Amino acid sequence: MTRPARGNDNMQRFKPLPAAAALIALPSLGLAQEIDTTPVNAEIGFILNTFMFIVMGVLVFWMAAGFAMLESGLVRSKNVTMQLTKNMALFSLASLFYFILGYNLMYPGDGWTIPGILGAFSLTTLEPVGLAGAEPDLTYASVGSDFFFQLMFCAATASIVSGAVAERIKLGPFLIFVVVLTAVIYPIQASWKWGGGFLDQAGFLDFAGSTVVHSVGGWAALTGAIILGPRIGKYSKDGRVIPIPGSNLALATIGTFILWMGWFGFNGGSQLYMDTAANVADISRILVNTNTAAAAGAAAALILTQLLYKKPDLTMILNGALAGLVSITAEPLTPSLISATLIGAVGGAIVVFAVPFLDRLKVDDVVGAIPVHLFAGIWGTIAVVFTNSDANLMTQLYSILVVGVFVVATSGIVWLILKTTMGIRVGEEDEINGLDMAELGMEAYPEFSKG
Amino acid sequence: MTRPARGNDNMQRFKPLPAAAALIALPSLGLAQEIDTTPVNAEIGFILNTFMFIVMGVLVFWMAAGFAMLESGLVRSKNVTMQLTKNMALFSLASLFYFILGYNLMYPGDGWTIPGILGAFSLTTLEPVGLAGAEPDLTYASVGSDFFFQLMFCAATASIVSGAVAERIKLGPFLIFVVVLTAVIYPIQASWKWGGGFLDQAGFLDFAGSTVVHSVGGWAALTGAIILGPRIGKYSKDGRVIPIPGSNLALATIGTFILWMGWFGFNGGSQLYMDTAANVADISRILVNTNTAAAAGAAAALILTQLLYKKPDLTMILNGALAGLVSITAEPLTPSLISATLIGAVGGAIVVFAVPFLDRLKVDDVVGAIPVHLFAGIWGTIAVVFTNSDANLMTQLYSILVVGVFVVATSGIVWLILKTTMGIRVGEEDEINGLDMAELGMEAYPEFSKG
Amino acid sequence: MTRPARGNDNMQRFKPLPAAAALIALPSLGLAQEIDTTPVNAEIGFILNTFMFIVMGVLVFWMAAGFAMLESGLVRSKNVTMQLTKNMALFSLASLFYFILGYNLMYPGDGWTIPGILGAFSLTTLEPVGLAGAEPDLTYASVGSDFFFQLMFCAATASIVSGAVAERIKLGPFLIFVVVLTAVIYPIQASWKWGGGFLDQAGFLDFAGSTVVHSVGGWAALTGAIILGPRIGKYSKDGRVIPIPGSNLALATIGTFILWMGWFGFNGGSQLYMDTAANVADISRILVNTNTAAAAGAAAALILTQLLYKKPDLTMILNGALAGLVSITAEPLTPSLISATLIGAVGGAIVVFAVPFLDRLKVDDVVGAIPVHLFAGIWGTIAVVFTNSDANLMTQLYSILVVGVFVVATSGIVWLILKTTMGIRVGEEDEINGLDMAELGMEAYPEFSKG
Repeated sequence: MTRPARGNDNMQRFKPLPAAAALIALPSLGLAQEIDTTPVNAEIGFILNTFMFIVMGVLVFWMAAGFAMLESGLVRSKNVTMQLTKNMALFSLASLFYFILGYNLMYPGDGWTIPGILGAFSLTTLEPVGLAGAEPDLTYASVGSDFFFQLMFCAATASIVSGAVAERIKLGPFLIFVVVLTAVIYPIQASWKWGGGFLDQAGFLDFAGSTVVHSVGGWAALTGAIILGPRIGKYSKDGRVIPIPGSNLALATIGTFILWMGWFGFNGGSQLYMDTAANVADISRILVNTNTAAAAGAAAALILTQLLYKKPDLTMILNGALAGLVSITAEPLTPSLISATLIGAVGGAIVVFAVPFLDRLKVDDVVGAIPVHLFAGIWGTIAVVFTNSDANLMTQLYSILVVGVFVVATSGIVWLILKTTMGIRVGEEDEINGLDMAELGMEAYPEFSKG
Repeated sequence: MTRPARGNDNMQRFKPLPAAAALIALPSLGLAQEIDTTPVNAEIGFILNTFMFIVMGVLVFWMAAGFAMLESGLVRSKNVTMQLTKNMALFSLASLFYFILGYNLMYPGDGWTIPGILGAFSLTTLEPVGLAGAEPDLTYASVGSDFFFQLMFCAATASIVSGAVAERIKLGPFLIFVVVLTAVIYPIQASWKWGGGFLDQAGFLDFAGSTVVHSVGGWAALTGAIILGPRIGKYSKDGRVIPIPGSNLALATIGTFILWMGWFGFNGGSQLYMDTAANVADISRILVNTNTAAAAGAAAALILTQLLYKKPDLTMILNGALAGLVSITAEPLTPSLISATLIGAVGGAIVVFAVPFLDRLKVDDVVGAIPVHLFAGIWGTIAVVFTNSDANLMTQLYSILVVGVFVVATSGIVWLILKTTMGIRVGEEDEINGLDMAELGMEAYPEFSKG
Repeated sequence: MTRPARGNDNMQRFKPLPAAAALIALPSLGLAQEIDTTPVNAEIGFILNTFMFIVMGVLVFWMAAGFAMLESGLVRSKNVTMQLTKNMALFSLASLFYFILGYNLMYPGDGWTIPGILGAFSLTTLEPVGLAGAEPDLTYASVGSDFFFQLMFCAATASIVSGAVAERIKLGPFLIFVVVLTAVIYPIQASWKWGGGFLDQAGFLDFAGSTVVHSVGGWAALTGAIILGPRIGKYSKDGRVIPIPGSNLALATIGTFILWMGWFGFNGGSQLYMDTAANVADISRILVNTNTAAAAGAAAALILTQLLYKKPDLTMILNGALAGLVSITAEPLTPSLISATLIGAVGGAIVVFAVPFLDRLKVDDVVGAIPVHLFAGIWGTIAVVFTNSDANLMTQLYSILVVGVFVVATSGIVWLILKTTMGIRVGEEDEINGLDMAELGMEAYPEFSKG
């Protein structure tokens, strides 16, 4: 049976055990302090852990809708159908290729192809119906629930990319990139930490994926945005930045609320266990810290845009909330409420300064995915050292770098192969007319005349 | 106490018991193999089963919003207020009439009016507050949670109809049809399978309702669409099909994501029990298969529309995902991931071919509800035989036919009575001007000028 | 440890205990009747209670998105960005100020500054990670989960206000009001009931907050709407009411569905315990009654607007559903399904009559928040006496009055201070041009030309 070694690092910290045995033995520890670990408790623990993954996994699934709405609200109306199509398609392809290849690459258990570096190549298989004939490890959760939860993280990584490269990329090459990202690139680097690979062994801490998920999506997005080049008309010949407003801020806002909601599953479920009082209390801590960091990120962006531009900027506030969420994701458990506020607020501030910074570099990131997921992801990964004494700054930086180099290199190669073979960018006329009519022949809002 | 005999068929298969006693005895079996069934375990099982219904029921409730958004996005803007009104009203009426009449017709327990065919006529009553004086059957779940979960299925059936008959039906007669459908037609046929009636006794298998819910909505929609006739301008005099694009594909897409999310409750909750490791592992299997089939349906529609029309079609992709979901609903537990992929992909393909097929027959189904819910529902019901050895093809076909004849006959009678008494279709001028102003005097997007 | 005495009044009624000891002792009672309260059961109870708060709290969080969408759909498109900004910002500020000040003011435990009247002034602190060194009270739930759940109620109160004062209030003063409301006004009056203060001791019953949450938001909204004055053009000089239609009824409808969904958490979670069969069965009762009252409110508004105006009115139906929800919130447990139907239907009727009534008084409530939250909240608080024999009409009326006087006085003072210092209303030209361009420089739908 595939068994994730993802690691609730904090749990390990408080109940140190030999690495290999840790996750097997952990779930019953809380109970063990007080009562016998009889079968009934193991089975109830298994039920609680599994149901927790189911509920939290559904919330993380919901983030796919959040990305779709956020991105569709921030592009121009002539590209909305394309953005919706990309998001629906990328989630579907991620769902298929993660079971075909990704899951066992990420969680090889004893089946590493190259130990600690390259996982197993095999189809995912679930436990038999009714656990018939199976001897489930009752100390964890069902394989199906674990797969369900982990899949949603993989899909989220791909969703991050689609926003940054919007409004000019062709559908076909984008989806091919998604397949490589979700089947190979994401799972391999994720195995290094959550599969128990070499970064995990080096002591890298990343609770729910500021680096493993968000920076990976961010690096792939950055690489794609640079190779694609900016949208026509985004940067004038005399060097000015031309604002291109999103077509529907109500959509962008509901997308942000959806992501915020889904993040409770993203971070909360990453506790991995809910079979002891300590675990469920930790999940509560995580939810409160996650909410607090998001609120602080939004508030920071509100205040900063008021101070800098004299007018609060809604898209900055939305991205500020998301940056707060990304920032707390590497360590949502150990911070106090004040620490969570500060971590999230810095994330929000990063967005406010990084968006114009990227524009100065002429990197055209349509929705702000790179500041939110890459820059705040790096910040969050570093910030672990402030609240978790087990974290080591050098190890955190080393891991950020290793993952960054790997993702930039692999995704760069894929983008460049796609560019030279089939081309990744639509023609100039198609871009000006909008991808919806050019590539899909279908407008998102056909009856609303454009101003 | 009303007690559903709905049946987790697969559970029965692995732990065969005399039919009548099966569901009473089942929930404690998993535990019984390992431990004593002491009161504490029964009570914890009851809590877990009940909370599972609550969580999953809330997800299925959410599908009402999904249908509302999907349908409102696929109609023209002049009919959006009407589509929103219908969806809000149909859910409300279903909520009232299901407790007034439907629930005990569907789950008569020992109170059949005609055994196995016609259930009980009585108001729903819940357990007393605090279970005071009650002796609850701790082997299942609370009546309230069961009612809550089952109600949402009844309402979903009505939601299916509203999309197909959109843009030309009058509000009043539509709502009267909804009352008959949710109070009488749906519950009676559902009792035949899930109430333990004659189809259940014949060995019919339908885990979460490809036939009992989706085909029923689909048959009622087909009957209504035929009796209503197509929208003005849909089919030209020389036989061509005039495409009528939906007004808001962002709404249609979030509607699809909502339905996809809700389906985890729809199929997962239909396991009915979460009181053993086997049950919760089965729920996980169900969620993964459900997600995989949806993804495969969307991917199939993406690929097929690219091949057939050279352009991917977002509305086909959305309906492909939904058809994948409907297809897996009759048996989301037994398929392997590969089987779930194939079952869902065939569902997606059905939509791609059935939409133009219905158009050739001049059946005007505004949102594609008939391909998605009826055709894919039939396919899913048949496909049970491929992965569940207890299923019998003849029994499946017989049951599909019995339910189809019953629903077409009863809903046809209701539609025709409504047509001859009060009329079901708005006047020609009102249809051209839009139902929103004609019937409701209120536009959905009053400020956006029409192109 | 902070320990809420909020009170599941019904639970107290069926298992009467001395007030102070009641909530400490209650959770294990159900189990105690049948089995020993050994540690294992206490720990499982703690897990179940805590996870219930987490799930229900996420649902109540989701209501923040519901308010944002409802309000943004009901304002004109020129004020949509502002409405979105206000909702995102108010939730963020509430999240911060509730932990900085609100939570311990509301739940002072033994730390009352003035016993029963004014709570404690201190930062919220959560349990330590892994409960290390803590001796958690296993008879309740984790502090983190309780804080998470309670915070969402506080934020909802602020959301109620933002709709009523829309389309003319300045962002800055509105947000300052939100800070005072969520940090001070809401928590202080909530402590009187849910913190175990003087209204609780007087026997006031308010299960989930028809008065404590909804009327408070409603009173603050009413005070603000009066002090602000109506929108330009709402009331003509000859006394006529000029209808100002909302810009996007699809948004308003999804907002309503979101609120309906979130209300299952709002009312269901207010049971506070899920550690016995009786508690979880009660939660199911609550969900069914909540759903039924919403359905009845919507149906009543549908029927009444058809009778009164010959055309059903979607915005009335949406508000009717919400009024049904508010009405059942003071007592969602004890009513039968028929009683819940009647309570909700009266709520829906109140909206239909109160909206024109407020217009006659020239109180301009943009979204109908005052009829829904204040009037239906009062009705719901009174209606407790019809189904809960522990309720006393005089005590209910006295408590409604006390809370009303307090909120009108305090929020009136805050509004007037803001008005005289910085001004609360935008200039006439800015109001006519829309707050989006004037205050934020950003349109919500920049590409859709206005009709």
